[in-house]
Amino acid sequence: MDLHPKGVFCAALTPLNADLTPDLGAFAGHCRHLLDEGCDGIALLGTTGEANSFSGAERRALLESAIKAGVAPSQLLPGTGVTALTETIELTRHALSLGVTTVVMLPPFYYKDISDDGVYACYSEIVQRIADPRLKVVLYHIPQMSHQPISHAVIARLRAQYPEVFVGIKDSSGDFANMTAMIEKFPGLAVLAGADPLLLPLLKKGGAGCITATSNLVARDLAYVFRHFNGSDPALEAAQNRIIKARERASLFPQIASLKVLLAHQTGHNGWRRVRPPLLPLPQENIDRLLTAGPALKETA
Amino acid sequence: MDLHPKGVFCAALTPLNADLTPDLGAFAGHCRHLLDEGCDGIALLGTTGEANSFSGAERRALLESAIKAGVAPSQLLPGTGVTALTETIELTRHALSLGVTTVVMLPPFYYKDISDDGVYACYSEIVQRIADPRLKVVLYHIPQMSHQPISHAVIARLRAQYPEVFVGIKDSSGDFANMTAMIEKFPGLAVLAGADPLLLPLLKKGGAGCITATSNLVARDLAYVFRHFNGSDPALEAAQNRIIKARERASLFPQIASLKVLLAHQTGHNGWRRVRPPLLPLPQENIDRLLTAGPALKETA
Repeated sequence: MDLHPKGVFCAALTPLNADLTPDLGAFAGHCRHLLDEGCDGIALLGTTGEANSFSGAERRALLESAIKAGVAPSQLLPGTGVTALTETIELTRHALSLGVTTVVMLPPFYYKDISDDGVYACYSEIVQRIADPRLKVVLYHIPQMSHQPISHAVIARLRAQYPEVFVGIKDSSGDFANMTAMIEKFPGLAVLAGADPLLLPLLKKGGAGCITATSNLVARDLAYVFRHFNGSDPALEAAQNRIIKARERASLFPQIASLKVLLAHQTGHNGWRRVRPPLLPLPQENIDRLLTAGPALKETA
Repeated sequence: MDLHPKGVFCAALTPLNADLTPDLGAFAGHCRHLLDEGCDGIALLGTTGEANSFSGAERRALLESAIKAGVAPSQLLPGTGVTALTETIELTRHALSLGVTTVVMLPPFYYKDISDDGVYACYSEIVQRIADPRLKVVLYHIPQMSHQPISHAVIARLRAQYPEVFVGIKDSSGDFANMTAMIEKFPGLAVLAGADPLLLPLLKKGGAGCITATSNLVARDLAYVFRHFNGSDPALEAAQNRIIKARERASLFPQIASLKVLLAHQTGHNGWRRVRPPLLPLPQENIDRLLTAGPALKETA
């Protein structure tokens, strides 16, 4: 069965201007660069992209900027799930209006102790109200952040009721056993790893690919792993090792701020270092430690 | 020192039409009824009001509907804190544009493990950008839902930097020791209980009042407690007992759906029973159990 979405998708970081508005030009350039490096698409406006720190208008502007810069709508997987179903619908409809048909959708994440019935009701209501046969949804399972896991029972009900819509799941829990269990349980569901080092083992189990943060830095290595995972050449091992090291390095300090420091260093554009509160930029001491913690990152052309 | 806000504020429930849009007419009528019952004001668009399940436009319409119905802006304390600081600013500015100057503000609640510096940075950025000397903020401490406690260190910094702005805190943690500690530590800070039965003991410790859910049903009793808390008449004890019982009853099943069932029963308007996903209405069996679990609630005139 053909999986969709399939491949390496970068959970793109969002560059900011000095006033903390999204730097649309730098963002669009970064998306094009990631595709040049071999990404199959851009999963913009996720946790790594600080999406929930942006207003609806800012989110729409970011998506539009990528399309205006020539990125094909089919290569864009924006995050559109917020706490209010009417806003999730608005953001998803906006994506569809631009020709973007696959979105990554968080469950609502304000109320706690929501039952499976409540999570199902939310997704179901959203799909029914949008009522667009083009819509494809990647569920977003990131319980450590959303505090709202997406259970197998919910996935089964959504797949049964809307088989054409709920095509994939991004699993950012880090729980490899959960990912492989979903591959076995839900044939045709695209299971995407949320952690870069898991792309290789997940592909061997029938996974569809990944949506990951470190791909902002090592997209080329991830693309290599995706295309050669069944091989055993030394280049595959080397790529996987670089991926593991890059992720370890980005985890020395808070991850999003760290990735931004490393990307600023790689691109020579210090604007990348900015984050929006409640996230904070790394103190200079930690920037220094981070930049000397590993080999110099490849400079982009 | 004069505390503000001071009194009994109802965390108003939000009635819905059959299509789950806010029923603005019923909402405005409920606000007026609550004031008639003795509430000092309405803390609309909080957790009990399902605020995070509504879009920005829906939130603005609800606030406007209360004002159009003749509720004084000074009696309205809307919740305006969301995950994106630009949207928190937009909602707060909208309130100010209507003459509403006191808002209840959640900290950002998507990212986890945010440091005190990050929480401070968020509130500080919001106040600086709004730059309106009329603005008064009630901090909203509800860690069981937001997973973002507001520490005493953050309160101290905000009070030191913006003494005219951060005038109060709603403590919905249920932790009475935390409430009394804040009263001692921060003279002039209006500490408001988030749980109805705590109004009476908190007033005796110097608390400013409450913002509570059960006040949708027993506002008159809370108003009585507020005005007579220093007395020892049997009417005070009776009011406090009714408050405790009403809250216990509303806690048999999920609280918001239960309160809505009880309010539907009290008003005779079954539209009150609707909730927006991810919350779900009570099953009929539980509605029956809830309605027979206590004395008939007073019918409104």
